[in-house]
Amino acid sequence: MKKLRYAMVGGGQGAFIGAVHRKAMALDGQIELVAGALSSDPERARASGRELGLREDRSHGRWQDLLADELRGNDDERIDFVSIVTPNHMHFPVARAFAEAGIHVVCDKPLVHSSEEAAELMRVVQRSGSVFGVTYNYTGYPMVREARDMVSRGAIGAVRKVIVEYNQGWLATHLEASGQKQADWRTDPARSGLAGAIGDIGSHAENLATTVTGLELESICADLTIFVPGRRLDDDGNVLLRFTNGAKGVLIASQIEVGCENDLRLRVFGTTGTLEWHQEEPNRLLHAPIDGPLRVLTRGSPWLGEAARRATRLPTGHPEAFIEAFANVYLGVAAHIRAIQAGRAADPLDADYPRLEDGARGVRFIEKVVQSAASTAKWTSFED
Amino acid sequence: MKKLRYAMVGGGQGAFIGAVHRKAMALDGQIELVAGALSSDPERARASGRELGLREDRSHGRWQDLLADELRGNDDERIDFVSIVTPNHMHFPVARAFAEAGIHVVCDKPLVHSSEEAAELMRVVQRSGSVFGVTYNYTGYPMVREARDMVSRGAIGAVRKVIVEYNQGWLATHLEASGQKQADWRTDPARSGLAGAIGDIGSHAENLATTVTGLELESICADLTIFVPGRRLDDDGNVLLRFTNGAKGVLIASQIEVGCENDLRLRVFGTTGTLEWHQEEPNRLLHAPIDGPLRVLTRGSPWLGEAARRATRLPTGHPEAFIEAFANVYLGVAAHIRAIQAGRAADPLDADYPRLEDGARGVRFIEKVVQSAASTAKWTSFED
Amino acid sequence: MKKLRYAMVGGGQGAFIGAVHRKAMALDGQIELVAGALSSDPERARASGRELGLREDRSHGRWQDLLADELRGNDDERIDFVSIVTPNHMHFPVARAFAEAGIHVVCDKPLVHSSEEAAELMRVVQRSGSVFGVTYNYTGYPMVREARDMVSRGAIGAVRKVIVEYNQGWLATHLEASGQKQADWRTDPARSGLAGAIGDIGSHAENLATTVTGLELESICADLTIFVPGRRLDDDGNVLLRFTNGAKGVLIASQIEVGCENDLRLRVFGTTGTLEWHQEEPNRLLHAPIDGPLRVLTRGSPWLGEAARRATRLPTGHPEAFIEAFANVYLGVAAHIRAIQAGRAADPLDADYPRLEDGARGVRFIEKVVQSAASTAKWTSFED
Amino acid sequence: MKKLRYAMVGGGQGAFIGAVHRKAMALDGQIELVAGALSSDPERARASGRELGLREDRSHGRWQDLLADELRGNDDERIDFVSIVTPNHMHFPVARAFAEAGIHVVCDKPLVHSSEEAAELMRVVQRSGSVFGVTYNYTGYPMVREARDMVSRGAIGAVRKVIVEYNQGWLATHLEASGQKQADWRTDPARSGLAGAIGDIGSHAENLATTVTGLELESICADLTIFVPGRRLDDDGNVLLRFTNGAKGVLIASQIEVGCENDLRLRVFGTTGTLEWHQEEPNRLLHAPIDGPLRVLTRGSPWLGEAARRATRLPTGHPEAFIEAFANVYLGVAAHIRAIQAGRAADPLDADYPRLEDGARGVRFIEKVVQSAASTAKWTSFED
Repeated sequence: MKKLRYAMVGGGQGAFIGAVHRKAMALDGQIELVAGALSSDPERARASGRELGLREDRSHGRWQDLLADELRGNDDERIDFVSIVTPNHMHFPVARAFAEAGIHVVCDKPLVHSSEEAAELMRVVQRSGSVFGVTYNYTGYPMVREARDMVSRGAIGAVRKVIVEYNQGWLATHLEASGQKQADWRTDPARSGLAGAIGDIGSHAENLATTVTGLELESICADLTIFVPGRRLDDDGNVLLRFTNGAKGVLIASQIEVGCENDLRLRVFGTTGTLEWHQEEPNRLLHAPIDGPLRVLTRGSPWLGEAARRATRLPTGHPEAFIEAFANVYLGVAAHIRAIQAGRAADPLDADYPRLEDGARGVRFIEKVVQSAASTAKWTSFED
Repeated sequence: MKKLRYAMVGGGQGAFIGAVHRKAMALDGQIELVAGALSSDPERARASGRELGLREDRSHGRWQDLLADELRGNDDERIDFVSIVTPNHMHFPVARAFAEAGIHVVCDKPLVHSSEEAAELMRVVQRSGSVFGVTYNYTGYPMVREARDMVSRGAIGAVRKVIVEYNQGWLATHLEASGQKQADWRTDPARSGLAGAIGDIGSHAENLATTVTGLELESICADLTIFVPGRRLDDDGNVLLRFTNGAKGVLIASQIEVGCENDLRLRVFGTTGTLEWHQEEPNRLLHAPIDGPLRVLTRGSPWLGEAARRATRLPTGHPEAFIEAFANVYLGVAAHIRAIQAGRAADPLDADYPRLEDGARGVRFIEKVVQSAASTAKWTSFED
Repeated sequence: MKKLRYAMVGGGQGAFIGAVHRKAMALDGQIELVAGALSSDPERARASGRELGLREDRSHGRWQDLLADELRGNDDERIDFVSIVTPNHMHFPVARAFAEAGIHVVCDKPLVHSSEEAAELMRVVQRSGSVFGVTYNYTGYPMVREARDMVSRGAIGAVRKVIVEYNQGWLATHLEASGQKQADWRTDPARSGLAGAIGDIGSHAENLATTVTGLELESICADLTIFVPGRRLDDDGNVLLRFTNGAKGVLIASQIEVGCENDLRLRVFGTTGTLEWHQEEPNRLLHAPIDGPLRVLTRGSPWLGEAARRATRLPTGHPEAFIEAFANVYLGVAAHIRAIQAGRAADPLDADYPRLEDGARGVRFIEKVVQSAASTAKWTSFED
Repeated sequence: MKKLRYAMVGGGQGAFIGAVHRKAMALDGQIELVAGALSSDPERARASGRELGLREDRSHGRWQDLLADELRGNDDERIDFVSIVTPNHMHFPVARAFAEAGIHVVCDKPLVHSSEEAAELMRVVQRSGSVFGVTYNYTGYPMVREARDMVSRGAIGAVRKVIVEYNQGWLATHLEASGQKQADWRTDPARSGLAGAIGDIGSHAENLATTVTGLELESICADLTIFVPGRRLDDDGNVLLRFTNGAKGVLIASQIEVGCENDLRLRVFGTTGTLEWHQEEPNRLLHAPIDGPLRVLTRGSPWLGEAARRATRLPTGHPEAFIEAFANVYLGVAAHIRAIQAGRAADPLDADYPRLEDGARGVRFIEKVVQSAASTAKWTSFED
């Protein structure tokens, strides 16, 4: 199988998530990095390219130069897609430009800063036909896919209630004052967007809940707080949820919960059963059927469904984790791109990745939470 | 040590919680049952009395007869207190009558049906000087007391956030239609009160959170649901909390979460640490300090405080559980009664039990949740 | 139901386990303490009796006086059984004397110091017809009984392997030098017997494994160690097991494993499934069937068997623990005594308690372990 | 940083572990596959090479051809090392040949079939100066390295006892009869070697225990069993351990424990503390100090040591797993090779990987276990 080639925008020295994306793509030997504009600082961009073994002529100081170079390059060497791992505020211009040029795009979340930008991206992508993936990486976990399949095939009946939490503690102090790079941009409205914790991790929680349940939000009631003095964006959010099918829910996203590491967890309660999943123990899915004891489903077991099976590399008990889930999102995008290149329809079980629509819905969620938090009305509707 | 003597009102054949109260009181050999009006059905009351070995003349068909009999009995045989374990609607008349008669009272929760009734009880008790305990039994767990002490001595800094949940699944179906006695009265507004899940278990959650943190509610925002068709009281509630010190919180109480047994759990996040406790693993308290690894505190360990120590019977690793916690509440009441009888002040570490004020606060909480659930205003204040 | 009356030998002030026995018997209101010889020190015996509210004339300084008094007492007040909770070396003379007098006996474990003594007790009891229970209390846990039933009805196929462990750490230092009473007699050969850890807790492990599996030992290979300088009895033991059906096993008993509290745990591996139980989380039993996911069985669930059901007081999620398990052993003995007193056969599901045979087998196990530890032969047979 | 180039022997279509090795090496972008002899079946070898994108002239049907080709190739394209992932019986000839040719080697475990072969390899490697790594992959986990460091710096005092287990259940039935490739060769003495479960996974357990504690075995007592009818090698083993420092231990390795997945776990008990680690939850290390509560150490925490830190890619709570641990072993080998190529001494914290000596010790362990299992003497010494 020929490797797909990609360019990366962002992710240079000092960044965190760019390296994760690269490892995820490297893992299975199907995707290789060939070009980049790895930092907004041209010097750092080039140094980062050298460190990663990029050819000098394909390592650019500005993403516009990368794009221009790709457009004039010869077909044999051209990238198959671009991966955008910059701080949030750069997602929109970069994604739009590459998509307009007909290049496939993978973009980190939250997608963009506003629903207007999201709508504009949707229009561009519809015109260009680009594949567009959004790295809601947690949906790449096999047991999340199993949960989604179980809900979808009725294994827990009709969903009544959803509790989704993303508990972190790393911003319990004024870490951004220390110059820590991750804290710095995530707490800066200009680069992070409307929201802090709700944007950075609440959007993951929303996506996880929506992906697994297939439910649609009808209205929400949010309480956002800035606990750490001097901070400008929320570091804690609690949200009541109402879904269009009558289900209720709670979403909690916080970065000031001391001792919490990356504690994303989901509980889905149906009429005939319950599912529970924790990101920090990702190889297990708990299933409580109404008529029998709790069942502990583990990744790699023969009684799991096809979606989980395809997302699995190792036998049960040989744990897979964060990078593999990330890689699964990329493999989904890659399967879609390969199908298009081969002129065939993609197998939906292979081309399994979060789409532009997921990204747009996530942006709208952030906007609504911020709107609700500022409102004295109890419920902020998703219908308008 | 002379045993204290008590009478029980309610708790006859077919009841659940009455037997738990009796076992809790029997456990340590300090309290003995000598009289009762064990059922509102006089026949069943007497049969229950026989089963429990009550003397015929002290086993009554009506609680009024029990009270009258006590008032004319001779001092040597008189009860030291009454334990009220009836369905909720009987708490008020029985508790008021015994308290007015100067008899010490232990009453199950939720205390009464309205704040007016609670206020009336407070007046009566203030006049009579009766000891009045409310069986918020979960506060009797040693590790809950340790948590309370840790918060109080600043071990986690200032409390910023509280998440308290009481997850059950036993009412996920229309169980009351089967005639199951526990389901029957708990889902009946006439006997249960204003609320279903919020009254039955949400009030425990409120009490646990308030007891451990010492915080006071400023306002709440509640969403109550009746999921099971035909039911008349909420079987699910999600509540946003705001405390007067600026802390935020979430309270979840549900009886339709399939697979959940008696999953009361509390997380308290402070500026310098976090505490977490689960009722189903009651011998452990998790403590995450901001500057070190998670610590697993276990009941009976030498590094725990005096309140936890006094509530402990067995060495570490020899689990204690629900009945012992219940018994600790009763031992607290008993210590208070003994101190009064001896004409001395009670040691507060011994007379450690939920008071009438806790019960009244719980009633108000239920009222406010119901009021908020019916309101279109986002926040329902506790100040008016 | 008329309460059974008992006398206690041992268990006075400063003892640990006597109070546990008393609480266990008090819990359900079916058994009451009426007499005792609570300490080998006559002064302490009487002080202990006063503390427990014994009548002065029934609180004795010597167990021989207690026995004599019972034999001349009138029938209405006579004890129904004696509970022996002394240090090990006193079990034999006291148990023999009471059994010879035709009084029912409950005796703590390890039963006696030698198989000769055990055989003598067997002869006495056979002649007198006394009920004789041995407080291998862990077999009173409902989920242990469920495990026993599951093995017995073939739920895991034929047993191939057993791993049983009893991990403690409280004797990791030379605690007996501090005068701590529990450490003092347990490390003294004169009072504890042939073995230390193997006698005190290894015998529980043996009993748990044998009770649940129904297997019989064929031979063993033991390695005993005294880790703490100055100690005279083993504080750590590791034993390979071979059962007569071809199953294999490992038994670990240690009191020097720092951080271990009372970590008794059992794994039973069959041809078609596995069971796992931990004493510190006693309300759960793990069942891994060969053809499906792990099932977490919880006490009180409707899918458990009758033996577990009868040993259960509270609904699922309301944890029961150590004292309830102890109480179940006593309720089993009580059911047997009541049946005899009523002249009927006992229901085996009610009269469910460890018998004299279990005690004798436990003594033999300790002897064989000590023999094996001293031997250069690999296998020490149980056949001779 | 220039990528290191490697050739792989074994690991073609249908193999399991070869793909894991390749993903592990691909993960960090520092090592690339350039040549191979991927199967003992020449057709399958070439098909596998095409699938992995090997150049046709570097994909060989026989490992001898691969070696010959490497020896005549030009320096710029030559491999930096060979990775041997064949069934066990091929380890020796391949490893010896490449090492004799001065090529660096990474070889899977168990290293070879006999101590004679191991000694011969040692001689060859000593002459040639080749780097030689053995993929005891579990030692690549950051928390295993933390455990090793903690023991080594005295954090738990002197080690008294070690319990190491490797519990699996996948061979509880006669799976090899189905033609399953992994079961087939692992149960065949000609390809697997002297032992079954003890060789395949017991050797991992031995290595884990030895690596973490630094202790040396003095003697052992083993019981090996073939439970599944028709099988020719042990599928279950229980071993008592004695270390030269007086420490004791138990090693359990089984492949018939139904429901166990890849349950490698280690407990190390010292005079002042205990460590516990489970491979299926690899990001946590439990530490019980004698004078405080249990501490849960998590990968990525600031209070861990340098060895764990260097083996870590992601922040706490973003789980790393099996492949990352494998990759860490390869990064250790790569660091050593790079240092040699650069003519400098390797930083031992970077060149952290299991050596040929570990492999040889593992072979000797297997031999001794088999010898002990066949012996009627209790202890089989490691001194002769």
